[in-house]
Parts: sequence; C-alpha cells; structure tokens
Amino acid sequence: MARFVKQDNAGPATAPGADGAVVLSASALHESLADPALESMNFLNEIAGRFPHAVSFAAGRPCEKFFDIDAIPTYLRRFESYLREERGMNDAQIQRTVYQYGRTKGIIHEVLARNLRIDEGIEVDPEAIVVTVGCQEAMLLVLRALCATSLDVVFAVSPGYVGLSGAARVLEREVWPVRETPHGIDLDHLEEQIATARAAGRRPRAVYLIPDFANPSGMSLDRERRLQLLELAERYDLLLLEDNPYGLFRADDGERPPTLKALDRQRRVVYLGSLAKTCFPGARVGYVVADQRVASAGGQGLLADELSKIKSMVSVNTSPIAQAIAAGKMLMHECSLVEANRTEARIYRANLRAVLDGLASRFPNAAALGIRWNAPAGGFFIVVSLPFVVDDAALEDSANEYGVIWTPMKHFYQDDDGGGDRQLRLSVSVLEPAQIDEGLDRLQRFVLARLEQSAQGAFGRVNLD
Amino acid sequence: MARFVKQDNAGPATAPGADGAVVLSASALHESLADPALESMNFLNEIAGRFPHAVSFAAGRPCEKFFDIDAIPTYLRRFESYLREERGMNDAQIQRTVYQYGRTKGIIHEVLARNLRIDEGIEVDPEAIVVTVGCQEAMLLVLRALCATSLDVVFAVSPGYVGLSGAARVLEREVWPVRETPHGIDLDHLEEQIATARAAGRRPRAVYLIPDFANPSGMSLDRERRLQLLELAERYDLLLLEDNPYGLFRADDGERPPTLKALDRQRRVVYLGSLAKTCFPGARVGYVVADQRVASAGGQGLLADELSKIKSMVSVNTSPIAQAIAAGKMLMHECSLVEANRTEARIYRANLRAVLDGLASRFPNAAALGIRWNAPAGGFFIVVSLPFVVDDAALEDSANEYGVIWTPMKHFYQDDDGGGDRQLRLSVSVLEPAQIDEGLDRLQRFVLARLEQSAQGAFGRVNLD
Repeated sequence: MARFVKQDNAGPATAPGADGAVVLSASALHESLADPALESMNFLNEIAGRFPHAVSFAAGRPCEKFFDIDAIPTYLRRFESYLREERGMNDAQIQRTVYQYGRTKGIIHEVLARNLRIDEGIEVDPEAIVVTVGCQEAMLLVLRALCATSLDVVFAVSPGYVGLSGAARVLEREVWPVRETPHGIDLDHLEEQIATARAAGRRPRAVYLIPDFANPSGMSLDRERRLQLLELAERYDLLLLEDNPYGLFRADDGERPPTLKALDRQRRVVYLGSLAKTCFPGARVGYVVADQRVASAGGQGLLADELSKIKSMVSVNTSPIAQAIAAGKMLMHECSLVEANRTEARIYRANLRAVLDGLASRFPNAAALGIRWNAPAGGFFIVVSLPFVVDDAALEDSANEYGVIWTPMKHFYQDDDGGGDRQLRLSVSVLEPAQIDEGLDRLQRFVLARLEQSAQGAFGRVNLD
Repeated sequence: MARFVKQDNAGPATAPGADGAVVLSASALHESLADPALESMNFLNEIAGRFPHAVSFAAGRPCEKFFDIDAIPTYLRRFESYLREERGMNDAQIQRTVYQYGRTKGIIHEVLARNLRIDEGIEVDPEAIVVTVGCQEAMLLVLRALCATSLDVVFAVSPGYVGLSGAARVLEREVWPVRETPHGIDLDHLEEQIATARAAGRRPRAVYLIPDFANPSGMSLDRERRLQLLELAERYDLLLLEDNPYGLFRADDGERPPTLKALDRQRRVVYLGSLAKTCFPGARVGYVVADQRVASAGGQGLLADELSKIKSMVSVNTSPIAQAIAAGKMLMHECSLVEANRTEARIYRANLRAVLDGLASRFPNAAALGIRWNAPAGGFFIVVSLPFVVDDAALEDSANEYGVIWTPMKHFYQDDDGGGDRQLRLSVSVLEPAQIDEGLDRLQRFVLARLEQSAQGAFGRVNLD
C-alpha cells in the first residue's frame, strides 16, 4: 500500500524555462500525481482512440444507443411539475431551485428515497441522503470524514475499483487490500487484515465493496455472506461502504439477494449510489445514504450532515440542473430505475450471455489450454484467466495486430505484486452482437497466437493448471 | 492558522446507541469538520429562513429575475449546433459528448478560451483549461497539486473568501493570511509573511486573491499594484491564483485594469474562473487556466493535465450536460459574457449606487458617529465599519428586532483575533430598489439603536475615531 511520508521538501519548486516562463518541477507537486496507476489509466484511456478499428471490450460505459438530447426538456418539465405539485413550489421558487445556488445535500433526495424504497427495499430518511458529483465524490467525502488521521484505515476488495484508491491517495489515506474469493470478499483475509492493522496501531474504520456484480471481477456476495459480513462489521466495529452501480442488471431470472443496506439493522452500512449506469453518466449525479448518527458535545446529528459540510468545501453543491434532469427521468418511470432500464437490462443480459457462450464455443478445450473465465450473474464484466502474461504490452499488441482491446486486470490491483498479471477484463456493456462476435474471433486469434508463442518459449512457460 | 496534528487517535470511534444502532463519535471524524467556521456558516445560511420577512443584504447570489427554465432547451440546441458545425460531430458523437462519460478536462474549453480572449484579452491554449465543478473544485485541485506536503503554504488576503480556507482544511494544508489595504492586498505584509514562512522552514507556493471587487471587501487592485505583485511573484518564485467572479460588474464607465493573467508574461498566474455569476450558479461550472509547464523525468506537460489527474479522483468529470447548457448561453452571445450580462450589470451598478447613496443620506454625520463604508468600483459587496461589535448575536438581534440581515465580517477572517468584529458586509446583488430602501431604513434604525445603547454603556464604549 502507498505510504505518504515525503520528508524532503527542500528541492526547488520551479525553474525558469528557455522562454523565461516558469517551469514547475513535478517532484514539487502532490504525491498522488506520482502514482504510476495514473499513467496506466492514461494509456488505457487513449488506446481505443489510437486503434479506432479495434473492437473494444474495455469501456465500462453504459449502453448509449437510447441517449437523446431531445428528451432533456421533457425530463426537466417532469421535475418542474414534481416541484409544483408535490413540493408546492411556485414559479419563482422553481426557477430558483434549478438555477440558483442551493441546498448542499441536493434537491432530489426525496425522489432518491422513493427510488430506494421501490427498487431496493431500502427505507431511508431523505435527510440522510447527500447528492454528490457522481459516486466518485461520494467516496471522497466518506473517506475524508471517516479517516480522521493517517492511522485510520479503510479496507477494500482487491482487485477493485480504482476510483476508491485514487480518492484515498488524494486525501493521503490508505486503502488496505482484501482478497476476493469466487463468492466475493474473503472474510477470513479481512479478519487477518483487521488484526494486522490493529497490531500496527492503526484504526480500522470501514470496508468498501461492490456486493453485486463487482467491477472488475463480476463477483457477487450471496445472502449468507452478506449477513456474515454485517456480523463481522459489528464484531470489529466497522462501517460497510456498499457501492451498487450494477445491481439492477441481473442476467438471469433468479432473485437478487437484498443489498447490505436493506439488511442493515445497526446503521453499519453507508450506501453509495450512482445514476451513471441507470440514468446517464452525463448528469454526474450520484449520492450517499449516511444515516449513521454522530454524537458531539452539541448533541446528535447525521453523518450525512457531516458529509455535507465537507462537500461545501469540495464542490459547494451538485449542479441542480443536472439533478433536475436525472430526477425527471426517474419520475417519468414512477421513480423505478428497474422500469426505466428494462430495455438496457435486456441488452446487458444478452451481451453477457453472448460473450460467455462465445468464449465457450471458441475455446472448447479451455481447461486443457489453461484458460478459464468466470460466469457472473449480472453486471458488465467477465474476467478471463490465461496461461500467459496479459499486460499493457500484450494489450498494445492485441489492439495493433489483432484489432481487439480489453483491460489488463493488473490495473485493478493496488500493489504491484503480480496480481492479475495473467487475467483480463472483458466489458460487455456498449457492444452490438456483431461486434461481440467479431471481437471474440479476434480475441481467439490473439490468445491462440500467444499460446503458440508461449509454447515456443517466447513469452515464458505455458501454465497448464 | 489551523494546525493539523492530531496525535490522539486511540479513542473509540463509535458507541452503541440506545436502539442498538451505531453512533459515531464526532471526535473520530476528520478535523476539518471541527472548524467553528462551519457552525457559523450554518447559522448564516439559516438566518434568512428563520426571518423570512427580513430584508437580506447577506446573500451573495446573482440576480435571479431573468432565470428561465424554458431557456435550457435553447441553450442545449445552440451547443449542439456548435458541436455539429464547428467541431464537425455527427448525431451519435453529439449524444455521446453530452450524455456519456467524457473528457476529464471538459468539453467547453474552446468556448471558454474564446470567451477569455473576447472579454478579458487573455490568450490561452484551450488545452490549458480544466472545466471544474464550480470554482470551488478548481481551488481544491490547485491547492492539492501545489501543496505537496504540509510544509507548503499558500497566502491569501484576509478577510477572504471562506471557500479557499475550507478547501485547504479538507486537504490538511495551511492558508496564511495577508492583510488588505484600501487598495487591495498589502504587498509589504505579503513579503513579511513570505519571510516568516521561509524562516520557519516552510515553502511559499502561491498567493490567492480576487483582484477585482473582492469578496468580501469590494477592494480592487490598480494596474500598478498588479504589476508590482507580478514582480513580487517572480522575485519570490510564487504563483498567483487569480479568482475573478465579479470582474465584469464594474459600477462606473471607467476602464477596468487588465487581469493579472492578461499581464502575465512568465506564466505565474493560475486563473480561476466562475460562471456562477455570469451564466447561472445551477450549472456548477467553473474552470481553471493552468498553462504552467511541469517538468518531470518523462518530459514536459501542462499543469492543467496534472490538475485533470486529481480531478479524475475527485469528481471524474464535470457534468457535460451542465457544461453544454452554460456554453450554449455563452455561444448565444458570441462567447461574450459582457454581452450576456448587459442587463444584470446595469442592475448591480444601480444597486451598488443605491446602497452607497442610501447610506450617505441616512448617516449624514457618519464620521462623527464613527461610521464609515468603502465605495467599491464594482461587484456585489460594500463593507460598513461601525463603532460597536457586529457579531452573530448582533445579527440575530438585527434580524429579529429590526428585520434586516447582513453578514458579520468576522466570518471572513481565518483567525479568531478580533478582525472584522466591528464590520459588516452588505451584498447588493439580489435586491430590488424598494427592498434596498426599506432595508437601509431598517439598518439605520438598528445602528442608531445600538449607538444609543453603546452610549449608555450596554455594548461597550463608542469608538469615535
């Protein structure tokens, strides 16, 4: 894990450039900028642009074929009528609510509370909701509030979403990795890490995870393990930070287990919500449910109000225009994002199925070749394990020679300890069926070529496990 | 200034509540939440709601009478046609640009660069612009990048905008106050503070200021002092963080001096832009111009790209929908916000005049009474100095007994050293002429009553300076 001790601050911060203009020294900028993960992200972000004819299984973006700018006025009008009819506002109040500076915690909290009740069975006081600039800001606010000093530690499943460790680095705090099993977070390893942290004088505060169809692994926690995790949180006095961007996109007709928040009897769960996949990313509207009470000399308040204070120093408030547009879409579907996403959910389900079936038909003797993949019950992502290294260099070759792009799993591991070296992530969310077919054909050619090269010793021994 | 050393981290972070639910201890949350300024801001934010019939000179919000939700589709269409005609995008690309995840640095950089050229005479590479979630996020990003360790120090005029010191507290960094003269930042005191910081082993990095019609003081720097400040920045190897939310609202026909950025020959100036007062706050769109080069082992880049990396960990990107709406309004006025704000500027000018004239007519013997106020050349704010204390208790009394609200200046001082104790800020931006008249009548009654009470010894000696 990263260490944030930077003793030598004496170097020059700038130097004059040849043209007389100042040139800043990178070494005098904040350490979060020196994180090699940033360079990797840059490489990944740019590769699709560099190989525009490649089929990309890399983007975790939502399906975009139903995006329609012309719908925005309709969404706005629907939110306007909600403010008028359900909140009793007059025209001037409506204009002010949408256009002016406003409530730091946001203006769509009641719509979100209704959505959580309908779609997730979560009952929550709207006052416990803080609307944020996407889920990313929500993570930043929660980490800042909970990690009072650098002794405080948050745990997270590794491989994990890079946004969490990124936010922690910006705040000079540490996220400790916890291993993942095929059934989600490894509870034994979590207990080990807690013990290690305590022995080192650190204070474990919270565990971050995506219990449903995680990014990047696609793993889900069953109901039993959810209850065990809640019990563990009580035993070790931790909070659980539940992130749920993909929960609505189950790929079969089975019943989804309740969210941790729906099972939460002790207010141990801080629920992180995203509308990026269920409304549209362009609103940049997320939220956090923080109904934990906070006791101070002045009495008791809600953690949401503490997060709101930090938010006032980070972004003041979330664009009420963007909130209004997202909430308008929700209101048009009676606040159910399950309803709003019937078509999209069908597409994701079909895509997931098509990739899983396509892998099976293209690698009928996968086990003998040392190839395997998981079969997530939903979400956007599948992880393929291979008997050779699939790093950035392999990706460059795959894009350039074979016309197919994927994400090396190593980027989702915090430590550079070889985790994920022989795994890649396939994202299914933005592809058409024909692209999936063509992309998997190309992937097959890439994999078979590498296997052959491996057998010839060019890339190390093939591991036929 | 605040100190961020919190050694005792051993206390319990939570306790069980009476209902079995966890209760967090406020002392185990981040220190920025313990800042008494937050309680004050809360008090200030709530007082207008508690006394709805009071005339409020407190709100620094822009004039809202021309807000019109029905204009949003027009703004969107204008931006759409810009993307189509000037950027050569097709429909699918346009939908993706507005709705999907997108460029971290934003999508309206070229519109903003055009605006800066037209309205401010600033020539800037659009690639050096990062679009942010309001100016608040821009401040956070710049502070994070520049203040690599807690030894790094940023200076700011005191009294100053609380958003800067708030962002610094969230990042565990220090903002050192620099005094203000009637002509803006006190350059002698700045030099003293730089020397003090260096002697203490600290590294001065930058000076934050609002050179035009500052919040809260209304002060402006003349051209000569701007050049002196740039020279000083060169001499001490500092950057200048120029915040310019009110620059377009000059109250007379005189010529506004160039911005620091327009005078900048060494790329010493990081320019912080806000569209809250010139488009609408509800978009939450601001930006930062950071054309400084950064040298690292890998070559040279722009500071803007470093800020963008931090932004990716704070908010991912600024809502492209909100960006599109704000840019659409700009494009409808050929990218000139001077043009877009002709009517608003006239209103602010008339209001500033009305308050200044109204004060003069209501306090004809001001000097004898120990009352004075400044006469800003523009912007939203006037500072009134009084011979008695005007703190939160006095404000409560003023709102409750006299029906007039204003802002105690002490809230704009970082240190609780009595700065601003006898000063209040009047904001003129959202009032109608009749409200100004009535509000000043009420303020007169409040002041005269306090003077009488002071003379009777109830509130301390009247200071007839």
